[in-house]
Amino acid sequence: MTDLNFDNWTCPLPLRDYPNIVMGHGGGGKLSGELIEHLFVPAFQNDDLAELGDSTVLPFAGGRLAYSTDSFVVRPMFFPGGDIGDLAINGTVNDIAMSGAQPLWLSAGFILEEGLSMNALGAIVDSMGRAARAAGVRLVTGDTKVVDRGHGDGVYINTSGIGVVPEGVHIGPSRARPGDVVLVSGEIGVHGTAIMSVRQGLEFGAAIESDTAPLNGLVAAMLAVTHDIHVLRDPTRGGVASTLNEIARSSRVGVQIDERAVPVPQIVRSACEMLGLDPLYVANEGKLIAIVPAERAEAVLAAMRAHPLGAKAARIGQVSDKNPGMVVARTGLGATRVVSLQIGEQLPRIC
Amino acid sequence: MTDLNFDNWTCPLPLRDYPNIVMGHGGGGKLSGELIEHLFVPAFQNDDLAELGDSTVLPFAGGRLAYSTDSFVVRPMFFPGGDIGDLAINGTVNDIAMSGAQPLWLSAGFILEEGLSMNALGAIVDSMGRAARAAGVRLVTGDTKVVDRGHGDGVYINTSGIGVVPEGVHIGPSRARPGDVVLVSGEIGVHGTAIMSVRQGLEFGAAIESDTAPLNGLVAAMLAVTHDIHVLRDPTRGGVASTLNEIARSSRVGVQIDERAVPVPQIVRSACEMLGLDPLYVANEGKLIAIVPAERAEAVLAAMRAHPLGAKAARIGQVSDKNPGMVVARTGLGATRVVSLQIGEQLPRIC
Repeated sequence: MTDLNFDNWTCPLPLRDYPNIVMGHGGGGKLSGELIEHLFVPAFQNDDLAELGDSTVLPFAGGRLAYSTDSFVVRPMFFPGGDIGDLAINGTVNDIAMSGAQPLWLSAGFILEEGLSMNALGAIVDSMGRAARAAGVRLVTGDTKVVDRGHGDGVYINTSGIGVVPEGVHIGPSRARPGDVVLVSGEIGVHGTAIMSVRQGLEFGAAIESDTAPLNGLVAAMLAVTHDIHVLRDPTRGGVASTLNEIARSSRVGVQIDERAVPVPQIVRSACEMLGLDPLYVANEGKLIAIVPAERAEAVLAAMRAHPLGAKAARIGQVSDKNPGMVVARTGLGATRVVSLQIGEQLPRIC
Repeated sequence: MTDLNFDNWTCPLPLRDYPNIVMGHGGGGKLSGELIEHLFVPAFQNDDLAELGDSTVLPFAGGRLAYSTDSFVVRPMFFPGGDIGDLAINGTVNDIAMSGAQPLWLSAGFILEEGLSMNALGAIVDSMGRAARAAGVRLVTGDTKVVDRGHGDGVYINTSGIGVVPEGVHIGPSRARPGDVVLVSGEIGVHGTAIMSVRQGLEFGAAIESDTAPLNGLVAAMLAVTHDIHVLRDPTRGGVASTLNEIARSSRVGVQIDERAVPVPQIVRSACEMLGLDPLYVANEGKLIAIVPAERAEAVLAAMRAHPLGAKAARIGQVSDKNPGMVVARTGLGATRVVSLQIGEQLPRIC
């Protein structure tokens, strides 16, 4: 199991005088400038960022924008299958994709702790650049602050993003309707289990890697089949259970799921049994929940399965007018149980 | 001198069970939901935020967007004349205004430290809501994370923002031209001195309050006179000296300023003498530097002086083709000195 994977990254020459972040890297002077010029701009490679004004100017033909923000505080910074950098890109790409939008531009705000190694920061920023290119988005504006040792945790990253919503697409958490079908794009609980495995030093009998991935391509493939998708959500912190509860409340409908139909990998099942957890509450990253009209469900499911990130997509339940605001699961034994909204989070700082 | 000014804020009923932030407030479950519903949504009052999807959808007629992000880590959180909340709104409003754009929408990402008092958070969020309304912008999307005690410092806030650039306006740090005139919108060094006064417990003979303010109205008044403004920058961290150095490098021009023409209030002058600082390097908030063609300078200056935030605007220097990339000041004694880009920042965590 690797938790530090920045061996391939080489610190550029002008930064080598400072193997670690010092307060001056956040001061807006020469050190700040060197960080931007030699670290951020090369990693994020684009002309908009190179201009370095207070804000970036972007032409837009008109339509509906999707706008989102997310801060990332995951611990550890490097974990199996990813790091805080690609998580920060994919997280905001996915939040925008959940409006059915194609993400275009991202911002990045860094809060660095004094003493952070330049190599770790370089590896994270490099990972962000690669994730942005993989998702087809551009990092166009950014900011760096440095806080004194003991007032941070290496690096915290905020990303925000702007996308464009295709005409005729109207997706939102309050649009689920009785009769709709609930789909999930793949196996659940993977990111949370991967983080737990490193955080708590547990071995679950096999290696498990975070499922962090950009979902905009999968969403585009689904929208190519039909624009008539009612809800999309990525079930990150709080897992599938929290996401379905939010949809049930927001749409004032009941959601019924069939536990046997929910794809849970054996390793997640074992980890949850060992720790006394419910996979429905374990965090995911590169997964989505889709709520679609029944007559579109098979076509959307087929499109999902034809995409690499939806190969294990499944139909897991339906929406009704019974018990509005509630999520109910039929268990493997044929009984039903209420899947409630939990109070907090079973594993803090998961993203 | 007041440093905690949240006496008027009253914690809403459902949040009173938790007088302090706990890890669960960042977990995406019931506690997170209560924070959003009873604290953020009432303070930020708008329908876009109330929908609470992963991203917010905003109609836009087309044109050029200005996009910016900034993280705020100022210490202390409450200081004379403002707090981290209104600073976070005004900071991003101003970054957008520096493209000549009218800011429209803002995002807010919070990184809360476990144990933060709900009253302090409430006061900050309330202050953000008021600052947003004063600037005419809407907070339309947000995110909250909680980090364990000892890994933050109360609250860090990231804001990003989107504005629209009027047709015919082309403002940027690389657009200064020889012959242009350098204007400043008012007295410099005020924010930095206010923060130093509380941080170091110094008394400078009089009270001094941060000059935090939204500059979009002032910029609009300037653009009403002429669209032919070349550069706008707000000289925050690093002060006027760093801002002019960045412009000189970006535009490959020399900048000459006349120190006697730079408006420095007596209290800033005294504080700088006491601490051995140069006012040109002290941070500002609600001030801007404008670089305009000579033939427009008087008209723009008159428009600035007619606006409450530009009443003490002054002409402080000019741009030439001598010493490209350098800033030179003529001192009160008639000598000249190079105003170089400093290495770090004299006062960390100023914004």
